[in-house]
Amino acid sequence: MAQLLKVQCFTVTADGYGAGDDQRLDQPFGHLSPQELFTRRSNTASGAFGDGGPQTRGIDDLFARDMHHGIGAEIMGRNKFSPFRGPFEDHPEWEGWWGDAPPFHTPVFVLSHFNRAPLTLSDTTFHFVSGPLDAVLEEAKAAANGRDVRLGGGATTIREFLDADLVDTLHIVVSPLTAGHGVRLWERPEDLLDRFHLERIPSPSGVEHLLLWRRTA
Amino acid sequence: MAQLLKVQCFTVTADGYGAGDDQRLDQPFGHLSPQELFTRRSNTASGAFGDGGPQTRGIDDLFARDMHHGIGAEIMGRNKFSPFRGPFEDHPEWEGWWGDAPPFHTPVFVLSHFNRAPLTLSDTTFHFVSGPLDAVLEEAKAAANGRDVRLGGGATTIREFLDADLVDTLHIVVSPLTAGHGVRLWERPEDLLDRFHLERIPSPSGVEHLLLWRRTA
Repeated sequence: MAQLLKVQCFTVTADGYGAGDDQRLDQPFGHLSPQELFTRRSNTASGAFGDGGPQTRGIDDLFARDMHHGIGAEIMGRNKFSPFRGPFEDHPEWEGWWGDAPPFHTPVFVLSHFNRAPLTLSDTTFHFVSGPLDAVLEEAKAAANGRDVRLGGGATTIREFLDADLVDTLHIVVSPLTAGHGVRLWERPEDLLDRFHLERIPSPSGVEHLLLWRRTA
Repeated sequence: MAQLLKVQCFTVTADGYGAGDDQRLDQPFGHLSPQELFTRRSNTASGAFGDGGPQTRGIDDLFARDMHHGIGAEIMGRNKFSPFRGPFEDHPEWEGWWGDAPPFHTPVFVLSHFNRAPLTLSDTTFHFVSGPLDAVLEEAKAAANGRDVRLGGGATTIREFLDADLVDTLHIVVSPLTAGHGVRLWERPEDLLDRFHLERIPSPSGVEHLLLWRRTA
């Protein structure tokens, strides 16, 4: 089976923003509060954001469980890896948001125009790459060892791969929050209907799960 | 994390039947046609019943993909394994419905009052067991090597494990078909609300996915 490029569990606001303005160390999603943005999936048994509340095993949990399933590599934008801009040498101590044991467990390709040597933390290795998107995708597929590649965001990175027509499937979580301004994925998902099928799955938690997959030619 | 006993992708009719009456070799689901019963999930990219039509990657596909995920063993009733009744010696040639490469890829525990030596086909080994349900579950958990155990059906077997309060989660697919008579799982899922949470997820394909998970004490 062909290897796919998949967006998995990427959250946007009801008005289509993946992050707010003014992303920095003390506010990784800019003016949007991650607590608000992700609140609806924080309590699932398989979710990454457990807050000690009762754990659900409904539809939100199924999506959380599927996030890493069959994935052999991730591609992410520089702004997902780091709150800093400019050369990596300016913040040599920065090793990502995830501590000593990042949740990826695969090679991760970080898009950046600046160079940096590969960084290995536990079973995750971050590679810093500046090639054209299709070349980065080929590199990630080769590293994924037959499994699929997850496109981890942020919104700008997903948008670039969509514009290059390199994305095969998307699972987007729509939070009931509105942002008003920030980093936008789309105005509305229907803008992609010329190239993608779309299913809208409302969750009892209040979020809506969108599933898009490429129309075959 | 504790090992769970999970029902995954088990299909019933709108009136709660998992199979019709008069199950036999030429009609494995009795008077119900499997083509009708399973039609809505036949075209997903990960589904077991591909019929050559366009493959969807929506919510039905997500459930199909999750069916084997994290599962280390299956427990099934005798009537899922074989259309015959009585001692296995009467049909020594019978090796299940699935050919030389069954889709389980794990140990499978077949409940039966009759003895039979273990049967290995490719990477699946069928063990024929007659113990009390809780002992069979312990045996399956030990064989699952830390992963969860799937309860594969049929409806009577699921019902028995529910009555013994041994089931942790259920994913039931409700087909829009009605059966009128046959082997019943339940009158209505709400009968389990004293012990389980319930989410109802309608699919654009026309089936409804039910997710039930045990209320913690």
